[in-house]
Amino acid sequence: MTSIGILGGTGQHGRGLAQRFSAAGARVIVGSRDPLRARETVAKWGTAGQSIVVAHNAVAVEHSDLTVLAVPFTSVDTVLTEVHSQFRDTSIVIDVTVPVTFAGGRMTMLEVDEGSATEHIRARLPAGVQLAAAFKTIPAHVLGAADESLDCDEFVCGDSDEARARASALVELVPGLRPIDVGPLSRARFIEHVTALAIAINRTHKIHDARFRVVGLT
Amino acid sequence: MTSIGILGGTGQHGRGLAQRFSAAGARVIVGSRDPLRARETVAKWGTAGQSIVVAHNAVAVEHSDLTVLAVPFTSVDTVLTEVHSQFRDTSIVIDVTVPVTFAGGRMTMLEVDEGSATEHIRARLPAGVQLAAAFKTIPAHVLGAADESLDCDEFVCGDSDEARARASALVELVPGLRPIDVGPLSRARFIEHVTALAIAINRTHKIHDARFRVVGLT
Repeated sequence: MTSIGILGGTGQHGRGLAQRFSAAGARVIVGSRDPLRARETVAKWGTAGQSIVVAHNAVAVEHSDLTVLAVPFTSVDTVLTEVHSQFRDTSIVIDVTVPVTFAGGRMTMLEVDEGSATEHIRARLPAGVQLAAAFKTIPAHVLGAADESLDCDEFVCGDSDEARARASALVELVPGLRPIDVGPLSRARFIEHVTALAIAINRTHKIHDARFRVVGLT
Repeated sequence: MTSIGILGGTGQHGRGLAQRFSAAGARVIVGSRDPLRARETVAKWGTAGQSIVVAHNAVAVEHSDLTVLAVPFTSVDTVLTEVHSQFRDTSIVIDVTVPVTFAGGRMTMLEVDEGSATEHIRARLPAGVQLAAAFKTIPAHVLGAADESLDCDEFVCGDSDEARARASALVELVPGLRPIDVGPLSRARFIEHVTALAIAINRTHKIHDARFRVVGLT
């Protein structure tokens, strides 16, 4: 059984992933800076019988086959510093963050020197750790509605074939999602702009669940 | 009958638009810097009976209700200088360019100071001209195959309600395309990154016709 650590697992995005992975039979470790409080939060999810445990972020990394980074982008540096020494050469990290803020009610993409949140994270991980991006464009709102069919594609990129394959397998764990491999890590900037476009569509049309399907790829 | 001028109308993207608009009953003026040569090119399209004429770029702007900018992004400045004095306060321009190059066989997005090709163009148009972006994500390859169903969504943004409405109506002229209004002009940067993502998908999967449908918007 795959063991998946989700850092920032009590946020809206992290919660949706935790519940979907757990429902698919994976062992989920919700990582938090405050496990006591996180445990209370998770207890309220009503996912009795599912395999979700709570631990310190560092412990979640240590005991997971895959680490999903689901903290807000602005907390990435702090969390990575906190867990840095727990990564092993076999560690695989899946980045689901998007460098977007909603300051003043307006959606803005943050300028990221490295070109994307994923490349920013790459620069802060130990060299041997493999990194992929996934789950960046799925609306947290839909992800969290366990009874709602997702029915869309999720874009995956990564710095190794293995990282991309593991991220794609994770996407396939969730019914209704199809992984689309879009190549190397540098393509994360395209994916993150697609998320911004989804938010723009949501705001323009007063909906909450715009997402995408690729046409022309069978 | 709407009269549509297409600057760069003999390029692959322009040709596809010219043929699709003409097939839908619009009067199309293909604009060119070299109308004699462009006329020979258009004669070979085998669109006899369709309403496609060829003219100098400036003449195409002068006699059109809508001007579509379909030149390569790197030619935009030259063409806009050439036709600048032909725009009227009622002119509407639809930008279909994408700031992407394929130098050395590698797809690269150009750094555009204004943030997007569309905003770059906005800065070079007379103040009274209204501007929208559309047809940026449809693969020229599919657009040019008149017998192929497009079956996808096209993202529209613009600097006025009228520009967005006119661009959306143009998208609806083409069977199988649904316009998706994504708001103000600044969102062109998201759309242009979606095009880059489509190219990345094409290259990763060795296909030519990746395009998108929005899920969650009815």
